[in-house]
Amino acid sequence: MVCPGSFDPVTNGHLDVFARASRLFENVIVAVMVNRNKQGLFSSQERIDMVKETVAHLPNVKVEGFEGLLADFCKQRDIGAIVKGLRAVSDFDYEIGMAQLNRGLTSVETLFIATNPEFGYLSSSVVKDVASFQGDVSGLVPPAVAVRLKEKFD
Amino acid sequence: MVCPGSFDPVTNGHLDVFARASRLFENVIVAVMVNRNKQGLFSSQERIDMVKETVAHLPNVKVEGFEGLLADFCKQRDIGAIVKGLRAVSDFDYEIGMAQLNRGLTSVETLFIATNPEFGYLSSSVVKDVASFQGDVSGLVPPAVAVRLKEKFD
Amino acid sequence: MVCPGSFDPVTNGHLDVFARASRLFENVIVAVMVNRNKQGLFSSQERIDMVKETVAHLPNVKVEGFEGLLADFCKQRDIGAIVKGLRAVSDFDYEIGMAQLNRGLTSVETLFIATNPEFGYLSSSVVKDVASFQGDVSGLVPPAVAVRLKEKFD
Amino acid sequence: MVCPGSFDPVTNGHLDVFARASRLFENVIVAVMVNRNKQGLFSSQERIDMVKETVAHLPNVKVEGFEGLLADFCKQRDIGAIVKGLRAVSDFDYEIGMAQLNRGLTSVETLFIATNPEFGYLSSSVVKDVASFQGDVSGLVPPAVAVRLKEKFD
Amino acid sequence: MVCPGSFDPVTNGHLDVFARASRLFENVIVAVMVNRNKQGLFSSQERIDMVKETVAHLPNVKVEGFEGLLADFCKQRDIGAIVKGLRAVSDFDYEIGMAQLNRGLTSVETLFIATNPEFGYLSSSVVKDVASFQGDVSGLVPPAVAVRLKEKFD
Amino acid sequence: MVCPGSFDPVTNGHLDVFARASRLFENVIVAVMVNRNKQGLFSSQERIDMVKETVAHLPNVKVEGFEGLLADFCKQRDIGAIVKGLRAVSDFDYEIGMAQLNRGLTSVETLFIATNPEFGYLSSSVVKDVASFQGDVSGLVPPAVAVRLKEKFD
Repeated sequence: MVCPGSFDPVTNGHLDVFARASRLFENVIVAVMVNRNKQGLFSSQERIDMVKETVAHLPNVKVEGFEGLLADFCKQRDIGAIVKGLRAVSDFDYEIGMAQLNRGLTSVETLFIATNPEFGYLSSSVVKDVASFQGDVSGLVPPAVAVRLKEKFD
Repeated sequence: MVCPGSFDPVTNGHLDVFARASRLFENVIVAVMVNRNKQGLFSSQERIDMVKETVAHLPNVKVEGFEGLLADFCKQRDIGAIVKGLRAVSDFDYEIGMAQLNRGLTSVETLFIATNPEFGYLSSSVVKDVASFQGDVSGLVPPAVAVRLKEKFD
Repeated sequence: MVCPGSFDPVTNGHLDVFARASRLFENVIVAVMVNRNKQGLFSSQERIDMVKETVAHLPNVKVEGFEGLLADFCKQRDIGAIVKGLRAVSDFDYEIGMAQLNRGLTSVETLFIATNPEFGYLSSSVVKDVASFQGDVSGLVPPAVAVRLKEKFD
Repeated sequence: MVCPGSFDPVTNGHLDVFARASRLFENVIVAVMVNRNKQGLFSSQERIDMVKETVAHLPNVKVEGFEGLLADFCKQRDIGAIVKGLRAVSDFDYEIGMAQLNRGLTSVETLFIATNPEFGYLSSSVVKDVASFQGDVSGLVPPAVAVRLKEKFD
Repeated sequence: MVCPGSFDPVTNGHLDVFARASRLFENVIVAVMVNRNKQGLFSSQERIDMVKETVAHLPNVKVEGFEGLLADFCKQRDIGAIVKGLRAVSDFDYEIGMAQLNRGLTSVETLFIATNPEFGYLSSSVVKDVASFQGDVSGLVPPAVAVRLKEKFD
Repeated sequence: MVCPGSFDPVTNGHLDVFARASRLFENVIVAVMVNRNKQGLFSSQERIDMVKETVAHLPNVKVEGFEGLLADFCKQRDIGAIVKGLRAVSDFDYEIGMAQLNRGLTSVETLFIATNPEFGYLSSSVVKDVASFQGDVSGLVPPAVAVRLKEKFD
């Protein structure tokens, strides 16, 4: 079972999905998308490191970077299902489409889990917006991420 | 893992969800809701029987009737997750709400799987509408259900 | 080309769709659904009569009652397309599903036209609610319908 | 400013909207819709009583029953705005339509406030469903309502 | 009460929200977001000037520029509520999220008002698209804005 | 009747709409938007050429490039209706807005046709994403487009 994403940076909403997936499935891989053409706020290594620190307390969760199509990654690793958090209707349309595409490409299934409503508004973009104006991100991201955001926007 | 519903009657869309769930999880229970106050087209026994015939070829799928709250059923059976098909945005709002309610009541999680788009329009109500006007339901329901619908509306 | 509906009663929103369809297509049939099992506020004859009065000024629009499946009606008449007004997202899901069903049954296509936003909230139910409390329906329905509503709720 | 609804029964989600409205506006009227043709679980007097107990601690909130069109009620009382909680996209379409209708009838405006996400799934129907199966409603409704629900479903 | 936005440029849809808010609330501040990192079509000074000309006839509406987080701006000014126009479902998801974020950061509430359906499609982007092709924007923006758009795209 | 778009590149979903429109209307123009300020993957000439190859078997479909406002293009050609495919709710909001804008500018109507659900997830962006990672696009685009994509991403 794989939880894919850019995680630029990982938020408390992502962590909530990882933790719940780790209770439902034996092994969870968090797959951090590496995209050479798209510059994020954090480098792919930084993004991978932050996720690793964030899930260190979840023994059955592993973190890996990957490049290319998610469907290919799943096929290579013989992963049967992708798990994604669904926050809102606007997520829904996009994610249903991606699920259909991935299933068509390599038969991998996608399972959706509703985001904890407390984190319904939370995305990496929102976090970066708040941090860029020196807003308080302590309720939005794990402590290690808050520290790194402070460094970036100082 | 449990797939709940009224299944009045079971459709090819439901069957698609059962079959995909049976490939992802070791054991699948299809839980047929029995509601003494709400009269369906088929009795609860007929609905259970039709689901049983429909999943007979899936060895790790069991069918049971249940009465009461789904969250209580899951707790009694120590079931960690509900699997539901999501067809459209209008499903989404309702199902997300039910997932939040069930999680609040007994911590049971809900996993959503996107309905095969070929069956996106399909519901038990649509099937009953078409059958009531002697329309062709052969692409909409399993053969055994088509026979029973014909009997009901003759 | 056919504009189907229950029209219990016809509203200014429906009339707007009929008028625009009559400018785009050579011949328009307004098909009034007759349902023996579902009692409306107006009888099917009353509903047909009100639509006829409402479209009397549109020479290429004919009004007919029909019973059964819309897809069958289209096939019998060799009608290639259904035209439906779309008001809101909640309409969308249902209507897309019906379009898919009808196309699957008899290959009839469905074309959607966006309701005039001025009438976006308007439905036969809203009209009946307002009329039932002696509210002013003069901006919501054609004059002939307003008269009949007054008679029903006096 | 008026908060209208059926409140059959009032939930913690409704209470959250009343309390937030009472902080934003000088005077808040909770208007309990009385509908002689539609039988609820609780009588209109019971529904009014439960709301009164629920808002007793909010000094600027008054509770009244009303019959007829909300737009007429607002006009008679010279109320400029309706305040409604918005939970989900499916609420949105309906409520936007009602706002447009009410504004057309008597120029009354509608202000929407997002429901606390913790109560996003909560409705009077959900509460009645849970209570009907002896489920735990203590987190869903005020204590006085929980007692009355227990009486109804015993 | 504050109406925030980029207003690049202000449209007739924005003006409709300002005018309706000015009738419901004693004092309205239109807060024009200044973003040093994002270049708009108009400079922040031009955007502020255009809004000022547009609301000159509304005595209880003031216009100000602001930089940083809206939640901080509201806290500094002791503003209890943000008023936002809601056009469509795609607005809804985003705006509900922002409302939840802002409430979490500084307890400021957000009130939504449905856009006049006549302006439902209208956004600053649409206006710029039409103007860039020398289309007629006279029904979309106040006259002073139409003049400035003509200058920009000549 | 006109089917407008960027078609960067044309997909099997677009082709499905063209083919269905060609059965419903006497003459169909596919209008390929040329935008000098926005660089696509393919040049406007390449995009026009690919559409031409794709619809070569549909005798009543013509392909043209156009620059400027679609509403102006329709007016110049005396075209009464635009036909657009609708895939999902997120399309809906945008397309309804564009329809309202175009109708306001030059009275041109827009007719929507539901995308074949098999292609519901398909967009030019998805195709480019898959092709950029050497994924298999043979089920997503016509053969001639697949060849050109291969050339671009080799």
